Amino acid sequence: MFADVVLRGDFLGVRHDPAQPQRRPAPRPDLRLRNVPLGPVAVFGASNFPLAFSVAGGDTAAALAAGCPVVVKAHSAHPGTAELVGRALQAASIKCNMPRGTFSMLHGSGRIVGHKLVTDRRIKAAAFTGSRVGGGALMELAAKRPEPIPVYAEMSSLNPVILFPHALRTRGEQIAQAFVTSLLMGVGQFCTSPGILFAVNGPDLAAFLGHARSILEGQRAGTMLSRSIVSAYRAGVQRLMESDAACHVAQGLPASGPCGGQAHLFTTSLDAFITQPLLREEVFGSSSIVVQCPDVKSILEAMKTLEGQLTAGLHFDDDDTADVRPFIGVLETKVGRILANGFGTGVEVTHAMVHGGGFPSTSDGRSTSVGSLAINRFLRPVSYQDLPDSVLAPELRDANPWNLSRRIDGRLYSNP
Amino acid sequence: MFADVVLRGDFLGVRHDPAQPQRRPAPRPDLRLRNVPLGPVAVFGASNFPLAFSVAGGDTAAALAAGCPVVVKAHSAHPGTAELVGRALQAASIKCNMPRGTFSMLHGSGRIVGHKLVTDRRIKAAAFTGSRVGGGALMELAAKRPEPIPVYAEMSSLNPVILFPHALRTRGEQIAQAFVTSLLMGVGQFCTSPGILFAVNGPDLAAFLGHARSILEGQRAGTMLSRSIVSAYRAGVQRLMESDAACHVAQGLPASGPCGGQAHLFTTSLDAFITQPLLREEVFGSSSIVVQCPDVKSILEAMKTLEGQLTAGLHFDDDDTADVRPFIGVLETKVGRILANGFGTGVEVTHAMVHGGGFPSTSDGRSTSVGSLAINRFLRPVSYQDLPDSVLAPELRDANPWNLSRRIDGRLYSNP
Repeated sequence: MFADVVLRGDFLGVRHDPAQPQRRPAPRPDLRLRNVPLGPVAVFGASNFPLAFSVAGGDTAAALAAGCPVVVKAHSAHPGTAELVGRALQAASIKCNMPRGTFSMLHGSGRIVGHKLVTDRRIKAAAFTGSRVGGGALMELAAKRPEPIPVYAEMSSLNPVILFPHALRTRGEQIAQAFVTSLLMGVGQFCTSPGILFAVNGPDLAAFLGHARSILEGQRAGTMLSRSIVSAYRAGVQRLMESDAACHVAQGLPASGPCGGQAHLFTTSLDAFITQPLLREEVFGSSSIVVQCPDVKSILEAMKTLEGQLTAGLHFDDDDTADVRPFIGVLETKVGRILANGFGTGVEVTHAMVHGGGFPSTSDGRSTSVGSLAINRFLRPVSYQDLPDSVLAPELRDANPWNLSRRIDGRLYSNP
Repeated sequence: MFADVVLRGDFLGVRHDPAQPQRRPAPRPDLRLRNVPLGPVAVFGASNFPLAFSVAGGDTAAALAAGCPVVVKAHSAHPGTAELVGRALQAASIKCNMPRGTFSMLHGSGRIVGHKLVTDRRIKAAAFTGSRVGGGALMELAAKRPEPIPVYAEMSSLNPVILFPHALRTRGEQIAQAFVTSLLMGVGQFCTSPGILFAVNGPDLAAFLGHARSILEGQRAGTMLSRSIVSAYRAGVQRLMESDAACHVAQGLPASGPCGGQAHLFTTSLDAFITQPLLREEVFGSSSIVVQCPDVKSILEAMKTLEGQLTAGLHFDDDDTADVRPFIGVLETKVGRILANGFGTGVEVTHAMVHGGGFPSTSDGRSTSVGSLAINRFLRPVSYQDLPDSVLAPELRDANPWNLSRRIDGRLYSNP
């Protein structure tokens, strides 16, 4: 995808306001603008996606596409995979005659190597996928540098799902099946795993919970990615089990082995969800809480109290439309992606994808870590005033040798 | 300008990746994207531009254009002007039937009112033009919030000017005239005032200094904007006078009154500039330092040591072109605007303007505070998956009722 993006060149964002030498009281200079790369980027490999979000993941691809050299800090949970992928990237960069240093990789502790990397004055941005504590530490380090740098940290998300009344009544069983499938996907180790569901309490929700329970109880979870992930998951489930605020209603079959996962389903009341911070903490793995709400309006109010989220899933039928509309406006202030009649676990790598959202789902909700728009996070605009063609980059010259889309005097001309 | 930008709607950045129900192994969902406003923005009025960078300045205009309500913290240096402009804005917002709260303004101390404003959980971004200390304090407050928010602080800039050998030889007197005019403009209270000049030492530079000196000595400065600005300016000049590192070579005629300005010109060696931090501090007012360098190559090396800058001005003739080219690549990593044969003091409000740059010229070099691109700083993208027209905003519907430019499957289609 980024090959197309780079070749098309729209990411350069070229603009030109031609000189107006006759303008009164003062002539207008010639002004041209393009985006330039931020500089070397530190990419922190994620533990939960040894391929898609790690050494050769979206951030590395987006940074290289933007023209930024990349230094990866390999995640200690999969050093061998990181090494294999890192060597492949380095071989490719040599084969393509890229400048030395286009790609490099470091192993080691996050506290030592990661700290050194994000505070190195040559690094101009950092990208991270992981825990709220880890991301918060990077944000703090980056902010305290003599020259603060942007940090794109993707940290935690409950990914609220709302079941609207008509859909719950007419398609409860089907939604329960899709929900359990999504919850079990990757043993719940997707950033977009459905951690919390909201629905109006009553017989339709009871039937949904019955379906979900019977499906879940027949599902065996897989092996989780690392001992630290599985122990954090089990501790999170244990806290919910011990809490008066949540009711444990179902569990799946346990996977064997030290890193075996097991799915869990809880219910709670809306009051408890609003007042108990424990219920708003991400439990990274196949655990989810169904919030039993008095009515749709109270669900809308609950949405206003949520922190930032990567996704929100709305399950609704035509007859729910009037109920759904006000949710869009509220969720837009929090989430990166709003989806209808689906679960967010699948993340398409396309042009209209946003894998981002308000804090703490990400540290910087102004961008995405997945999809072609991710290139923007590693760019900044520069303006060129009255520079002759002899020193201008080709993309800025009048002749437009690269046949780029350009904005001239504010008007957009797309390339043919 | 923003009226055109809003009506054209390109800032919405609409993207659509249509569904591919036949795709294997899994169908592709329908994905649409648009930019939404960040939410309420706190704008801190600047002391140095009671109109252009204050209550109804660029940040307020850009935030309103993006759809963000604005709360202005009026600058205490011009409360009356702020009040007049604020009332005009409020009257306009009522006349246009804008929602209540679209625009509001607070007076009071930065430490109390400003602090409360930037830490209020309803505020989603802050924009500031002022001192490095003030901007740094806002950045720290914003980073420590439970939900950190973006801060766009424009703080300090030396705005380096480089005089290349041929231009210096052939047009030294003319450049000296333009330099002094720029230095005196607004009594040096432009963020883009030329604070530092670099040139190769020798007879041409001596002649240039002679011209600058004789022009400057005939120029009477104006009255500066406030007592705090004039006292900071005088203290800065005093520090340079007392330093062994700088040589005081000229001064203009003093303006009368307690806030009277007076222009000053210093010289220094490149060695001193590199080693003495005092010479790299912005002196906000009509003071400038000429750095006498051994050769062009050493100027290029000096550029690599600079912090971020709003502008860099290059004075060159055709015969200097080969010398100029490597400067572009270095300056692009630091500055927001590179200009040829001019001074940065004039800032055009157009589409291709960048009034921004690396830290500390701004806290976030990924955007601009002047020009139509400024709207981007108050926007974030949201993705909509499989949502039917019945709940989609008009700009996202297939029929494209607003006739917007859109990117479909990555390809840009500009509106006619």
